[in-house]
Amino acid sequence: MIPTRGYAAVSASSPLRLFGFERRDPGPNDVQIEILYCGVRHSDLHTARNEWQNTLYPSVPGHEIVGRVVATGALVTRFRAGDLAGVGCMVDSCRRCGACLEGLEQYCEPGFTGTYNGPEQGTGANTYGGYAESIVVDEAFVLRVTHGLEHLSAVAPLMCAGITTYSPLRQWGAGPGKKVGIVGLGGLGHMGVKIAHALGAQVVLFTTSPGKSEDARRLGADEVIVSREPEQMAAHADSFDLIVDTVAAPHDLDALLLTLRRDGTLVLVGAPPTPHPSPQVFNLIFRRRRLAGSLIGGIAETQEMLDFCGQHGLTADIEMIRMDQINEAYERMLRSDVKYRFVIDMASLREQPAA
Amino acid sequence: MIPTRGYAAVSASSPLRLFGFERRDPGPNDVQIEILYCGVRHSDLHTARNEWQNTLYPSVPGHEIVGRVVATGALVTRFRAGDLAGVGCMVDSCRRCGACLEGLEQYCEPGFTGTYNGPEQGTGANTYGGYAESIVVDEAFVLRVTHGLEHLSAVAPLMCAGITTYSPLRQWGAGPGKKVGIVGLGGLGHMGVKIAHALGAQVVLFTTSPGKSEDARRLGADEVIVSREPEQMAAHADSFDLIVDTVAAPHDLDALLLTLRRDGTLVLVGAPPTPHPSPQVFNLIFRRRRLAGSLIGGIAETQEMLDFCGQHGLTADIEMIRMDQINEAYERMLRSDVKYRFVIDMASLREQPAA
Repeated sequence: MIPTRGYAAVSASSPLRLFGFERRDPGPNDVQIEILYCGVRHSDLHTARNEWQNTLYPSVPGHEIVGRVVATGALVTRFRAGDLAGVGCMVDSCRRCGACLEGLEQYCEPGFTGTYNGPEQGTGANTYGGYAESIVVDEAFVLRVTHGLEHLSAVAPLMCAGITTYSPLRQWGAGPGKKVGIVGLGGLGHMGVKIAHALGAQVVLFTTSPGKSEDARRLGADEVIVSREPEQMAAHADSFDLIVDTVAAPHDLDALLLTLRRDGTLVLVGAPPTPHPSPQVFNLIFRRRRLAGSLIGGIAETQEMLDFCGQHGLTADIEMIRMDQINEAYERMLRSDVKYRFVIDMASLREQPAA
Repeated sequence: MIPTRGYAAVSASSPLRLFGFERRDPGPNDVQIEILYCGVRHSDLHTARNEWQNTLYPSVPGHEIVGRVVATGALVTRFRAGDLAGVGCMVDSCRRCGACLEGLEQYCEPGFTGTYNGPEQGTGANTYGGYAESIVVDEAFVLRVTHGLEHLSAVAPLMCAGITTYSPLRQWGAGPGKKVGIVGLGGLGHMGVKIAHALGAQVVLFTTSPGKSEDARRLGADEVIVSREPEQMAAHADSFDLIVDTVAAPHDLDALLLTLRRDGTLVLVGAPPTPHPSPQVFNLIFRRRRLAGSLIGGIAETQEMLDFCGQHGLTADIEMIRMDQINEAYERMLRSDVKYRFVIDMASLREQPAA
């Protein structure tokens, strides 16, 4: 076993703190990664605080992981020591169901294994995520990173925020000649704007904050709609091919549906704790519109996204924090006080004296 | 002008009664049809009683029309006197917008002209529907009927109930190897079961009435699920490719969404007066499911549906009524006391003495 250290919550009410644990020795298909950076997501916080009532403690969050390969099992073919590599939301799946066989491990029928909070295939045991010095992951769930080392910290959020927006944009045909809306300019939304722009679509940001307009344009939006202004919404009626909605708080879907053209799709990638107000069926029927959901992306598509982002020089806009700033970062995240993603510099964990 | 007689409501609270009016003389592109049968829909009743607050009076409902061509304009090429013909929900559209140019007149961007209640293109004037002796319609909105005369009364409901279910079944790929659900066994639902079966799909009826099971199997369902029985619903979790939901009363969409497999679609063709309870976003996200709407079908697709039904010997199950029974039929329809569609025998109108 490989001794490692991370930051863990031991209960719903305790702040995250230094936690020593062990990673498995790399098996023949495993890749051992020294974690250099890890993005910070709302779901990390929800899990640490047991807000979804399913947390296994101790809980080491983090599933936007990038780092350097330090060892590989005998059967590993795609990685060798020294390579840059990434790990996203999944570290395993059943590998046998229809979804897995189609490369859509995120929809694994028995359920995939989360990078943190398990359940491990077969045993149901907990898994420990990326707020740690190292991780050992089966090669099949490790991503190649082609961005240079100097961009690596800003690559971390692609592992979740990037693929979560890339997948529906690709699935529903974002590209040249298409008008694509992104709802919300947070961690997910700012990647959605960048990726939709790089795919060649006309990109419009929907936001409730007029103050985000300038930043949205810098990130690649052609236009910004303040969604609380009915006149701005009406001016875009029946015009969008696709809208990717990243806002997890309950909000009015009808106003968005009315901006979709015939056969347009509103894709929800955030799940609110209570349902959105129910959309009017007429708004679906009269333009044959669609409301859909989308969950991260499969491993192959995540690699495709990373390669696409590498080619187009796309990374996240981040604010780097030290590992011991994580609890404060959670509070700031709850106030939306981050542009647009916190990323932990894991060197700051290695510097800490033994607990 | 051609004097004709129909049944009209003159206000929201008045029963339908005999009403004399005039049809236009057939223009060069027009087809004059002696109406033989007309189906009776809930939307007829909603309009007669101004339940959607948009009724133009006097109101002559009826948009499931079949009859015989008696005269044609000089430029009409597809019909001649003596032909059987049908008219559905639309008698005109702008013919210039993207939807019209794609043959999707039902999604005409400025709005199509309803067979009754207008608005006429350009003028916004009222139109009078199929509860009448005759109608004059532009050839572009007249359908060929290849079923024999002996089946004609049972063809009438195809003009609306048939196309309303056929279009989403085709749009979303119902066919061999697909498991298709139909929700509700009324006028729309019983046609949905027949058409989905004829398309080669595995067909399952969702109903709240266990008593409909035998009839559903006779109509073509392979299986019947009593949707109020959680165990029956659970047994079909994650299994449907497509569900066409014909029920216009608010009901639980989550229970249906959970029976869809990955990338499955729940299509709503009925619009409730108040929204359905809001579906959980998780149910869309975790299997990349879709919730969509669909509105009747275009003229070309309606013709395709009629030809398909003709080839497969599909018609509606109807109960024939006399024109002067229409007010009673509305009351029975409100009690769901019809299997599965009332159709008016228009000979009964012609027999009536002049008002």
